[in-house]
Amino acid sequence: MQEKEGYVLAPCCRSSGDLQTYRRMVEIGVKIKGLKLDRPERWKERISEEVQKLLSLKEQLGDARPQKFQLKTPKGTRDYNPRQMAIREGVFKTIINCFKRHGAETIDTPVFELKETLTGKYGEDAKLIYDLADQGGEILSLRYDLTVPFARYLAMNKINTIKRYHIAKVYRRDNPAMTRGRYREFYQCDFDIAGQYDLMIPDAECVKIVAEILSELNVGDFIIKLNTRLLLDGMFAVCGVPEDKFRTICSAVDKLDKTFWEDVRSEMVDEKGLAPEVADRIGEYVRLNGQLELVDQLMQDEQMMKNKMARQGLEEMKLLLTYCQLFGVLDKVSFDLSLARGLDYYTGVIYEAILTTEKVQSDGGDKNEPVGVGSVAGGGRYDGLVGMFDPKGKKVPCVGVSIGIERLFSIMEAKAEAAEGKVRTTETQVYVASGQKNMLEERMKLCNLLWEGGIKTELSYKKNPKLLNQFQYAEEHGIPFLAIIGEQELKDGVVKVRNTSTREEETFPRDKLLEEIRTRVGPS
Amino acid sequence: MQEKEGYVLAPCCRSSGDLQTYRRMVEIGVKIKGLKLDRPERWKERISEEVQKLLSLKEQLGDARPQKFQLKTPKGTRDYNPRQMAIREGVFKTIINCFKRHGAETIDTPVFELKETLTGKYGEDAKLIYDLADQGGEILSLRYDLTVPFARYLAMNKINTIKRYHIAKVYRRDNPAMTRGRYREFYQCDFDIAGQYDLMIPDAECVKIVAEILSELNVGDFIIKLNTRLLLDGMFAVCGVPEDKFRTICSAVDKLDKTFWEDVRSEMVDEKGLAPEVADRIGEYVRLNGQLELVDQLMQDEQMMKNKMARQGLEEMKLLLTYCQLFGVLDKVSFDLSLARGLDYYTGVIYEAILTTEKVQSDGGDKNEPVGVGSVAGGGRYDGLVGMFDPKGKKVPCVGVSIGIERLFSIMEAKAEAAEGKVRTTETQVYVASGQKNMLEERMKLCNLLWEGGIKTELSYKKNPKLLNQFQYAEEHGIPFLAIIGEQELKDGVVKVRNTSTREEETFPRDKLLEEIRTRVGPS
Repeated sequence: MQEKEGYVLAPCCRSSGDLQTYRRMVEIGVKIKGLKLDRPERWKERISEEVQKLLSLKEQLGDARPQKFQLKTPKGTRDYNPRQMAIREGVFKTIINCFKRHGAETIDTPVFELKETLTGKYGEDAKLIYDLADQGGEILSLRYDLTVPFARYLAMNKINTIKRYHIAKVYRRDNPAMTRGRYREFYQCDFDIAGQYDLMIPDAECVKIVAEILSELNVGDFIIKLNTRLLLDGMFAVCGVPEDKFRTICSAVDKLDKTFWEDVRSEMVDEKGLAPEVADRIGEYVRLNGQLELVDQLMQDEQMMKNKMARQGLEEMKLLLTYCQLFGVLDKVSFDLSLARGLDYYTGVIYEAILTTEKVQSDGGDKNEPVGVGSVAGGGRYDGLVGMFDPKGKKVPCVGVSIGIERLFSIMEAKAEAAEGKVRTTETQVYVASGQKNMLEERMKLCNLLWEGGIKTELSYKKNPKLLNQFQYAEEHGIPFLAIIGEQELKDGVVKVRNTSTREEETFPRDKLLEEIRTRVGPS
Repeated sequence: MQEKEGYVLAPCCRSSGDLQTYRRMVEIGVKIKGLKLDRPERWKERISEEVQKLLSLKEQLGDARPQKFQLKTPKGTRDYNPRQMAIREGVFKTIINCFKRHGAETIDTPVFELKETLTGKYGEDAKLIYDLADQGGEILSLRYDLTVPFARYLAMNKINTIKRYHIAKVYRRDNPAMTRGRYREFYQCDFDIAGQYDLMIPDAECVKIVAEILSELNVGDFIIKLNTRLLLDGMFAVCGVPEDKFRTICSAVDKLDKTFWEDVRSEMVDEKGLAPEVADRIGEYVRLNGQLELVDQLMQDEQMMKNKMARQGLEEMKLLLTYCQLFGVLDKVSFDLSLARGLDYYTGVIYEAILTTEKVQSDGGDKNEPVGVGSVAGGGRYDGLVGMFDPKGKKVPCVGVSIGIERLFSIMEAKAEAAEGKVRTTETQVYVASGQKNMLEERMKLCNLLWEGGIKTELSYKKNPKLLNQFQYAEEHGIPFLAIIGEQELKDGVVKVRNTSTREEETFPRDKLLEEIRTRVGPS
C-alpha cells in the first residue's frame, strides 16, 4: 500500500524512557562529530569513550532496532484545524436546522457494533469494514454507515415510528482520495423516517430535505436523481435478466456514473455471463432520464406495463414526482433509469444528488473519461432491514437520506480560501489589557468580572505583556473590543474601552462596564 | 467475561438469506407443534414431511451451526435515545459556551491513531487500549483520551501556542459500571492551553473553567482538589522514597480516593517494597488538605523546604491559590496532598473535581467503605508530552482539563426523571392538519409554504388522517400550534391557527400566515 501522506520524523521509541535514551545517543553522536581536531591524541581517546557510552545506551534500548516513527494521522484520515472546524460547524448548523425544521429528533449509537450486526447487510462492500482486534470478549467492527445501526436500534427497542437524524462518523477501508473529499473516516448526516405510512409521502420529504440543504449551502447547481428498485427489477425482468442475476446486474448498472456504458456492458456480458442482446436491451433503458413525461412514455411501453414490478414502480415514481412538485423541488429532480445504488438493503425508491456546476477535470484526469462529479447525498427506501434484526422478522418500513458532507466541506473550504476573508475561529468579544507593569492581578479581576457577566473575554497569560502586543493580538484574532486599565483607571474606578477596528476609545465607570459592553457586542 | 446486558434474540445468521432460511425453519417448527391431534394417522405423516423440509433448510445453512444472535450494543456502550440526546445537547451547550467565553478554538482528530502514537504514554493503563484488527496496512488503535492526539497534533503541525477545546468520544477496555456512568465508549470535553507563559496563569484559568461548568450545570456541591507533581515528588524524596519508585508509589497514592490508607500502605510496603516507616511518613502528609494556610504550614516544614522540588511546588501552589481567589473560586478548591492522578504524562499542577452532595451509598455498597463519589473532571500540566513527538524533543508546555460528562449526564437524566417534566425532543412549531378527506396535496402545499418561511413544520404522512389523531400528535409532541385547512378555508383563502394548549382558534388570510405564526413562536 502506498503511504504518501505524513513524513518520517524520528526513530520509533516505545516509551518516553526509550525516547530519552535515543536522544542521549543522538547528543553523543553530535559530540563525536564536533570533536576538535587540534589535539588528535585526545581525539581518539574521547571517541572511544563516547562510543562506549553509545553502546551501553543502545543496550538499554534492548532489541528495539530504531524503526521509523511516523508523525501522521492514519491513512485516509485527517485532523480538522480551528479554521476547518469553524467551516464545518457552519455546515452542520445549516443541516441540523433543516432536519429540525422537518420535525426530526436525534439519536446516537456507539462507533462500533457487534460484528454480526453488520454481517450480511452490505453485499460486496463488506470487505471494507474495519474490524477491531480480538482482545478477548466480543468481536466488534466499526460502523460502516448509520443506517444499519439505526435499524438495529429500532428492532432492539421495538420502535415502529420515528423521524430522526444522526450525524456521526463512519468508517470504510476504501481507497482514499482525500483531495476529492474521499476519506476512510468521514461524517454522514442521516435523516430517516420509519413507520407504516401512505405511499411516497415520507419519500418525497427526503427529496425535499436534500434540495433544501444543497440550496442553503450554496454549493452551486445540483440534481437529485430518482429511481426505484421495483422499476429496476421490472426492467431487468423485461430485458430478460434471470432473477438470480438481478442484484449483480444492478451493481454493474451502479457503476454507470463512473464508467462508460461499454465497460458496464462488458462486465455484464463477459464477467457476469449475461446474453449480449439482454445487455443491449438494458442499455436502451438506462440512457433514459426525465420527469413526468418519461413516466408517461414508459407507461406506453407495453412490455414494461405487463410486468407487475415495473408497473408498480412507475406508479410510485409518478406519485413521487407529483409530490416533489407540491414541495416545489421538481426542477431539482431527474427520474433516471441508470441510477441503481450499490447497497443491498434498498427495496423501493432510491435517490442520489450530484453537483452539476463543479469544475470539470479539476484533478487533471483524462478528458475522455466520464466526469465523476461524485455524489453528495444518497438514500432510499429499505423496508426489510429492521426485520432482519427482529426475531419474528417483523418489518418496519423505512426511508431515508444521507448527506455526505466531506465533499461539501471541501467545496466550502475552497470557497472560503477564494474569498480570502478571515474566518474567525473564536468568539471572544473583549480582550483585557494594560500598558503598565504589575497589573496582572487587576487584569485577572477585570477578566473575572466580564466572565461572570457572560462576556467572552481573554487576557494575556504573561505577567507584564507589552501594550502593543495586546493590541496586535486583538486585531489578529478579530476581537472587537479591548478593556484597558492602568493605575489611573483603577484610582478613578473606570475602564477604558477601545474599539479594535476604529481605534476609538471611551471611558466608563467600572459598574457600568458590563452594560456598555453588552450594548456594543449585542446578544450572545 | 460476563455479558449481563442485552438479550438473546435469534440465532446468528450471516446474511439476510440465512436469516430467511432460519425463519422458515422456525415457522415449520411452530407448525409441527401446532398440528392438531384429532387425526393421529395424518399427524405422523405431516411431522415427517415437515422434518424433511427442516433438514433440507438446515442443509442450506451449510455448516453454520445456529449460534446466538445478540441484539445489543457492545459491552460497556449504549445508544442515546432522543430524550437522552436532548439532555446531552443541553449539557454540551453549557460546556461549549463556557469554553468559548474563555476564547477557545476547537479542533478534531480521527477516532483512531497509529498504535505507536499511543505507545508509552499511559503507564499501566495501556492495557486498556482498543486495537484495530490487522487487515493489512497500518497498525491502529482507538484513542484513549484526547490529550495524546492533541500533543501529536501540535508536534505534527509545529504549533507552539493554542487554546483549544475538543469534545469527542474516547475508548477504554475498562470494567464498565454503566449505572454509575462508567462506560467503555464515553465523551470527554477537553480544554487545553499550550504555550510558554508565566507561572500558573493558564493553570488557574483551567480551575476557573471547571468551577464555572459545574456551577452552571447545577449538579450540586463540588470541590476541585489541587496538587502538583513537583510537591508530590518532593514529598516522596523527603519521606525517603528511592527516586526510581516515585512513579509506582504515586500510582499507589492515586488509589486513596477509592481505598483506605491501610490498603494503600500495604501495597506500598508489601507489594512495592517500601520501608514501613517511609510509608508511614507519606501517610502523615497525604491526610493533609486545606488552602493557603496549608501552604504556609508546609512552608514551616524544614524538611520540605530543604527539598528543591517541594519548595518550588509549594510556591506554585501558593500562586495558584492566589489566582483562584482573584477568579472568585477559592471556596471551590482544596489543596490536597493525597491527589496523585494516574497518568504518566503530568509534570506540574494536577486537578480533580468531585461532587460532594451526591447520595451516599446509592448503589448499596458496604457502609464502611470509603465513598467513591468519583471524579467528574480532571487534568493537569504536561510539559513533556508534545516533546515526545518532536524529532528534536522540542517542548511545548501544556495545561488542560477534561470534563467527564457521562456521569454528569446520568445526574441530569435522573433530575429530569424526578422533575417529571416533559423533555421536548423536537422543535416543531406548527402541525399542518385537516379534518377532511383528499386534503393531502393541500396540506403538503401549506407545509411547504411554512418550511420556505423557516417555520419548523410537520404533517401527517397519511392520506386521510383523522383530525383527532392530528390534535393528539401535536399535544403529545408539545407542538404549540396547528395550521388547519378544509374546503371552506381554501375557498376563503384563509388558514385556521389553533393554539394546542389553550385550544383557541384564530383565522388569518393565507398571505398573512407566516407573519402571524412568527409573532407567536418568536425568533427561531
